[in-house]
Formats: sequence, structure tokens, C-alpha cells
Amino acid sequence: MSEVSRPLDALNEARGKRVIIDLKNGRQYVGKLRAFDIHINVVLEEAEERADGEVKRKMGTVFLRGDTITIISPQV
Amino acid sequence: MSEVSRPLDALNEARGKRVIIDLKNGRQYVGKLRAFDIHINVVLEEAEERADGEVKRKMGTVFLRGDTITIISPQV
Amino acid sequence: MSEVSRPLDALNEARGKRVIIDLKNGRQYVGKLRAFDIHINVVLEEAEERADGEVKRKMGTVFLRGDTITIISPQV
Amino acid sequence: MSEVSRPLDALNEARGKRVIIDLKNGRQYVGKLRAFDIHINVVLEEAEERADGEVKRKMGTVFLRGDTITIISPQV
Amino acid sequence: MSEVSRPLDALNEARGKRVIIDLKNGRQYVGKLRAFDIHINVVLEEAEERADGEVKRKMGTVFLRGDTITIISPQV
Amino acid sequence: MSEVSRPLDALNEARGKRVIIDLKNGRQYVGKLRAFDIHINVVLEEAEERADGEVKRKMGTVFLRGDTITIISPQV
Amino acid sequence: MSEVSRPLDALNEARGKRVIIDLKNGRQYVGKLRAFDIHINVVLEEAEERADGEVKRKMGTVFLRGDTITIISPQV
Repeated sequence: MSEVSRPLDALNEARGKRVIIDLKNGRQYVGKLRAFDIHINVVLEEAEERADGEVKRKMGTVFLRGDTITIISPQV
Repeated sequence: MSEVSRPLDALNEARGKRVIIDLKNGRQYVGKLRAFDIHINVVLEEAEERADGEVKRKMGTVFLRGDTITIISPQV
Repeated sequence: MSEVSRPLDALNEARGKRVIIDLKNGRQYVGKLRAFDIHINVVLEEAEERADGEVKRKMGTVFLRGDTITIISPQV
Repeated sequence: MSEVSRPLDALNEARGKRVIIDLKNGRQYVGKLRAFDIHINVVLEEAEERADGEVKRKMGTVFLRGDTITIISPQV
Repeated sequence: MSEVSRPLDALNEARGKRVIIDLKNGRQYVGKLRAFDIHINVVLEEAEERADGEVKRKMGTVFLRGDTITIISPQV
Repeated sequence: MSEVSRPLDALNEARGKRVIIDLKNGRQYVGKLRAFDIHINVVLEEAEERADGEVKRKMGTVFLRGDTITIISPQV
Repeated sequence: MSEVSRPLDALNEARGKRVIIDLKNGRQYVGKLRAFDIHINVVLEEAEERADGEVKRKMGTVFLRGDTITIISPQV
């Protein structure tokens, strides 16, 4: 475990990397993490919307409003 | 990836361009991004409401309250 | 597109005009926009409540609490 | 349309008059508007709870928490 | 109608009296109003939980979190 | 009725005692009240999760996020 | 019962230990607690997503947005 102690530090480490984001409505977005703020508003690039493991939409840049996000995880 | 690091910068780049906006209630709006604020309240022009890929209403100008928005994506 | 850049400016332009307001619960209100504030609390006059395109109630003045509103659009 | 421009002014005009209040849970309250605040917390007197147009409960005084309210309309 | 004009004044008048409280989840609590605050967090004493008009639980003291409350009404 | 007038005073009296906590999602937690704050975030010790009156999980220490709580009641 | 009196102290004690986190949407995450903040945003490491007691996804690092969390409990 690294010495990082604040949740946003973990998002900062993920900047420029591909992340998976789940929304409250069940949709999933995968893309390169370009930006985020303290409200957890997020911008992804080269993004895709997925449902049930399948790509539904190719989206380029996408802004996700923070209060609709449940989890953000760097792709392993 | 550009050097932009804040989510609202991405919305600023989209100003005057056509964007797709999904709401929590499943509705989708497509139009030219005229204005937004820190609450992600948005105004679109030449807007259409869509459901299941079909145009449901032509709306001209439409104000969308931020807390009902899930994602905003410039049309590719 | 006009030079207006803040979402509330668009509501201000609609003052005194007939607007359509959709709520999160699926109801729709149509009336003359008399007042709004930064919470998007709104007052309509000569208002009607509609469901499925039909008028359900004639309401005169109606106060709509902002957090229940999804969109506001001037009638075209 | 009067010269009033803030939503709470419309509630102020309705003070002491009978109003209809719809809640997010579908219930409806009708009574004399005694008090409200900026959160749209409201107190009605001589109040009734209605469902499907029928009186369900006579309630005397009732305090309604603002965030459960969708609309407030003076009876016409 | 008394000269009271703020909603919390009405709750203050009900202090020490039996009130009915409805929650967003459909449950109802009846008890003596011991305390409340500006968030409408409430404490009842000699409280009962009711559903469909029947007593489900005798609870003694109960703390109700404000944001789950829809209405509070003194028993008539 | 004691002279206590603020809701959090009632929680303070319950510190170290067994309480029942109901969540918005219908789950129930029973345990010794170790800590709470103004957001009604709560920590229980020797806690159990219950559903329909049956123990589902023994949990030791559990942190409950305030905004998911509906009621807190000392066991009688 | 220890002398700790604030809920976040209990989370602090759990730092570096495995915890179970339940979300409002019914999903469960198990992992090592690396970080949290006052909004209860949390970062887990060596995390797994579970449903009905089965591992659904191995996730490495995962950021969980606070307002989607219901409970956090150190594994016993």
C-alpha cells in the first residue's frame, strides 16, 4: 500500500490511464481519465459506453456528472 | 490528450458545438451547447429530445437542470 | 446563437413568455414564466398541468420547486 | 402578470389563502397557507390530505418538509 | 390563524404534544414531540410505528432523520 | 419527558447503549452506539444486520453513513 | 468499547485493514482501506466486487463515491 492517504490522490494517480466508471443507473463508461474535480465530475477521452459487457456507444470525450458516479477503478 | 485538467474546461471546449446529454430519467437531448454553469445547469439551442434513437420533440432553446444530467458528450 | 453565456440568462429571456416545464415525476406544466431564482424555483401564471399531451388541471398561478424540474423550454 | 419577480413573492401573496400542494410521493394536501421558509418548508392550517380526488385525512395543522414538495398552487 | 409566520414556530407549538410523522418510505410514527432542529431531525417519546393504521412497534424514544420526513401533524 | 430540547442530545443519552437503526434500503442494524456526528454518521459495536427479524450478519464494528439512516431508537 | 467518540475515528482505525462496503445499489466491495475523506469517499486496494456472496470482479484499486455508500465494516 502506498503512503497516499486521500481518496482524490488515487484519482490523480489514475490521470492519463484507462479507468472503468460505473453510474447509479447501471451504465458503465471506460476511457482515459483526463480530468476530475472535488465533486468527482470526470472527463474521459477515447470513451466507450458499455452495458452487459458490450460496447453500446463510442463517445470520444465524455463529461460525467459526479453525483451519478458510484465507482471509478483503473483497468487492471 | 490535451493539457486541460479541469472537467469544466472540457465543457468550455464544447461551447457552440453539438452535444448529446443524457438525463437520469433516460431521456436524451441533442443540441448546440450555448451555456453551462458550475452546477452543470446547461442551455442547448436547436435542441431535440430523443428516446430510443428517435426524435420525440423539436425544442429550440432548452434549459436542463444540472442535477438531472448524467453525461454530456460532444457529437463525434 | 446569441452572446449569452450563463444558463440563467436564457431563463431571463423567457420571462413573460410561455414555457414548457417537465418534472422528474413525469408531469408537465405549461404557462407564462413569471419568476425564477438560482435554485430554479419557478412561478408560472395561466398554467396548465398536462399528462400524455392532455390538459389535466388548469392552475392559474403555480410555484414549482426547483429540485423537481428537469427541463424548461420556451414554447416554439 | 404582476411586477413580482421572485418565486417566494408568489408564495407570500398566497399567505392566508387556500393552496394545493403536491408531494413527490403522489400525496396532495389542501389547506390555508400559514407559513413557509426559503427551504419551502410549509405549514398549512385546516388541512386535508387527498388521494385520487378524495379526502383521506383531516389534519388541522400540518408541517410539510420542503424537499418533498413538487408544486404549490393557490386554489382557483 | 395565529400570527406565527415561520414553519418551525408551528413545530415549536407542538412540542410536548402527540404528533403524527410520515416518512418517505411510507412508515408512520406517532409520539410526543420532544425535540427538533433546523434539519427537521426529530425526537419522539412514547412512540409507536404504524403501518396501514396498525401499531407495528412500540419504540419508547425514537430519533427520526429529517431528510426522510414528509409531514408532521399534531394529532387532532 | 426530560428537559432536553435538541435531537442530538437524545442520541448522546443513547451512547454506549444498544440501539436499533433502520436504513432507507429496509435493512436494520442493532448494536451498541459508540459514536455519531452532526451528519448522523454512526458507529455501532457488537453489531448485527437483521432482515425480517432474523440476524443476517454479525458485524463487530460498523460505520453507517448518515444519509442512509431513517430512524435510531434505543432498545426497550 | 474504546474511548473513541467520532465516527471517522472508527474508519481511521480500519485503515490498512480489510473492510466490507455496501452500496445503495446492492453491490458489495471488499478490500484494504487505503483512504477516506469527510464525504466518506473511499479508496480500497486489492478490491473485489461481490454479489450474492460471489466475487464478480477483481478490481485492484477502486474509488467509491461517498454518497453511494451505506455501511463500512472491518472484516471479522
